[in-house]
Amino acid sequence: MSNHTYSISEIVGTSSEGIDAAVRNGIAEAAKTLRNLDWFEVKEVRGHLENGEVADWQVTIKLGFRLER
Amino acid sequence: MSNHTYSISEIVGTSSEGIDAAVRNGIAEAAKTLRNLDWFEVKEVRGHLENGEVADWQVTIKLGFRLER
Amino acid sequence: MSNHTYSISEIVGTSSEGIDAAVRNGIAEAAKTLRNLDWFEVKEVRGHLENGEVADWQVTIKLGFRLER
Amino acid sequence: MSNHTYSISEIVGTSSEGIDAAVRNGIAEAAKTLRNLDWFEVKEVRGHLENGEVADWQVTIKLGFRLER
Amino acid sequence: MSNHTYSISEIVGTSSEGIDAAVRNGIAEAAKTLRNLDWFEVKEVRGHLENGEVADWQVTIKLGFRLER
Amino acid sequence: MSNHTYSISEIVGTSSEGIDAAVRNGIAEAAKTLRNLDWFEVKEVRGHLENGEVADWQVTIKLGFRLER
Amino acid sequence: MSNHTYSISEIVGTSSEGIDAAVRNGIAEAAKTLRNLDWFEVKEVRGHLENGEVADWQVTIKLGFRLER
Amino acid sequence: MSNHTYSISEIVGTSSEGIDAAVRNGIAEAAKTLRNLDWFEVKEVRGHLENGEVADWQVTIKLGFRLER
Amino acid sequence: MSNHTYSISEIVGTSSEGIDAAVRNGIAEAAKTLRNLDWFEVKEVRGHLENGEVADWQVTIKLGFRLER
Amino acid sequence: MSNHTYSISEIVGTSSEGIDAAVRNGIAEAAKTLRNLDWFEVKEVRGHLENGEVADWQVTIKLGFRLER
Amino acid sequence: MSNHTYSISEIVGTSSEGIDAAVRNGIAEAAKTLRNLDWFEVKEVRGHLENGEVADWQVTIKLGFRLER
Amino acid sequence: MSNHTYSISEIVGTSSEGIDAAVRNGIAEAAKTLRNLDWFEVKEVRGHLENGEVADWQVTIKLGFRLER
Repeated sequence: MSNHTYSISEIVGTSSEGIDAAVRNGIAEAAKTLRNLDWFEVKEVRGHLENGEVADWQVTIKLGFRLER
Repeated sequence: MSNHTYSISEIVGTSSEGIDAAVRNGIAEAAKTLRNLDWFEVKEVRGHLENGEVADWQVTIKLGFRLER
Repeated sequence: MSNHTYSISEIVGTSSEGIDAAVRNGIAEAAKTLRNLDWFEVKEVRGHLENGEVADWQVTIKLGFRLER
Repeated sequence: MSNHTYSISEIVGTSSEGIDAAVRNGIAEAAKTLRNLDWFEVKEVRGHLENGEVADWQVTIKLGFRLER
Repeated sequence: MSNHTYSISEIVGTSSEGIDAAVRNGIAEAAKTLRNLDWFEVKEVRGHLENGEVADWQVTIKLGFRLER
Repeated sequence: MSNHTYSISEIVGTSSEGIDAAVRNGIAEAAKTLRNLDWFEVKEVRGHLENGEVADWQVTIKLGFRLER
Repeated sequence: MSNHTYSISEIVGTSSEGIDAAVRNGIAEAAKTLRNLDWFEVKEVRGHLENGEVADWQVTIKLGFRLER
Repeated sequence: MSNHTYSISEIVGTSSEGIDAAVRNGIAEAAKTLRNLDWFEVKEVRGHLENGEVADWQVTIKLGFRLER
Repeated sequence: MSNHTYSISEIVGTSSEGIDAAVRNGIAEAAKTLRNLDWFEVKEVRGHLENGEVADWQVTIKLGFRLER
Repeated sequence: MSNHTYSISEIVGTSSEGIDAAVRNGIAEAAKTLRNLDWFEVKEVRGHLENGEVADWQVTIKLGFRLER
Repeated sequence: MSNHTYSISEIVGTSSEGIDAAVRNGIAEAAKTLRNLDWFEVKEVRGHLENGEVADWQVTIKLGFRLER
Repeated sequence: MSNHTYSISEIVGTSSEGIDAAVRNGIAEAAKTLRNLDWFEVKEVRGHLENGEVADWQVTIKLGFRLER
């Protein structure tokens, strides 16, 4: 079995709905340009507040994808 | 452009529903006494268990708000 | 009042739905063998990606339970 | 059951006796102005030295208290 | 000399007296079921407050013990 | 010698000039309402970018001040 | 597809040879009692010194294994 | 309002002058190839010493920029 | 002397042999597309287990390389 | 007022009595060779277990002392 | 090429001017007794406050220097 | 049994071969001047790259040694 190498990209997905949706939005956007996405890891959850309410959730995630040879 | 200063408060929001709701509950409560809330940051997610189920979610968040001059 | 001792177990709950469900699934499974579960703490949120979408959410949690005497 | 919100304050208790006493001193002082104190967490233990001996112990603690409604 | 393997257990010892006593209580309880206990490491010091005073100290410790062959 | 208790406040000072100025601005603003300020500690340095340049520096600092009795 | 739950065990593997061997020794020992071992993660590398040389390498690792249903 | 996604790049800016200049140099260089730069975060400050003096400051920063659609 | 800027890439090198080989494999793969590689830093060591043995070592490393002008 | 420089030493104090005593023992020993000791900071609390009891407490502390000119 | 060994010293440089000056002051003082200084790393930035202003900046740095043979 | 005090030194061992060798080289060098070396702990693994290959491994380790009385 060959030794694969993976690359890790860090992105911030956002959503007005919640944490899960922010992760899904970020991954969907990244999937448009990155192939072979394999795993993700949540690093930070922040957000913007407006009028005393969450205006948008900002979730920093690391994405691992296999480098093709 | 003037140099704003922000203050950071740390609170724990709770909910029996889930993480997002606990964040929203905590912020709604804080918004009753703090003005100019600008951002939040999730620091810790814990919870209480009863009868082998999550009884309540406890999410520690930091809240940033602009000091008025 | 007696001095209780608690033990901490680390598990990974998974779900295809989202973070909250992964926590609940892991706790439900652990509750089949551990009694007196008292609290939990989320330590890490990761997941597996397939076809550019989240295939499953993997949430590492610590579970505290009271040792019986 | 209602969803409580908690606020977290950070203080430094000091004592010439030791760590436990520094925690107790800090909490006793905080209890004069904060109500509904619920839990504490030790974050850092430092101290001042004089003539090669501990002159005072400085223990940074976080205090959680329930916001009243 | 043979290569020993050690296992690490995480527990929370409690006491109304102080940090040292909470560590000792937790270890005494663990020693009833774990043999060959070799070392411990304090990971977290928290506690419960009642009437503005420490009601009990909760010290999270890791315990290392040698696996027998 | 009496046992002093200190309180810790977390603020974000900002400046368009640099890190030192952001710290000084934040402290100057906090000094308008907090007395007996004793020490500070830099926790995070971030900033906003506009047109490929630093528009403002945002430095999160903890401020320790002695509680009066 | 069903939602699996994993449990995490923490062990210390040792060896007089080096880091890799200490990891392998610890896993081999753990595999005698744990089934469905799935992944490991190195948390800490320490060791004992004798006569100015490494007498044994001690590598703390976390082991994840799938709970059977 | 649409859900933006941001990408995070990590760079090391250097300068013989000081920390602020190293940050500015790194951002100026990155701005030649990255558009929509939005924020930065200082992660590490190191440097090279020559003849007992700072020869150059090396500041590791994360840069966030909005992905265009 | 000019002020260089460096970029940092994060990759995961793998190997069935051990940690050193996983680092070397990842760097060899990255060197096919990145020029001026200057330093690396190990961030995490994990691995996959099969039949109670290490099937492959996965080492996350950060790679620093000089941006050309 | 002149700009003082401080040096930091890391030691491990031990005691069979408890944490405070281990700190005091380590400082007393260090004070025999280091002058102008100014502050300390607890970094780690570990210990050795024998027969299911704490045989000795090992407290890692950093010591700051002013360099003389 | 031979295998060099480096030693790391931890110091606190101070200055009433700012962070960069505190680093430079500390290094200049250390350079009086340590030879072959090669790199530094900022670990902590604190300071003393007087009359609501920064009285002195205290920057903890690690210094690496090559051991001579 | 007397209460020993230990001192901790931080060094960087290097090698062109790999991590284990870098640790051994650093310890061998340190053992020329430090007596009663008792344990070590790996803190960081970095390295220098040349022509897309590891030119040398740099392993930061802490060394504990017993102070003699």
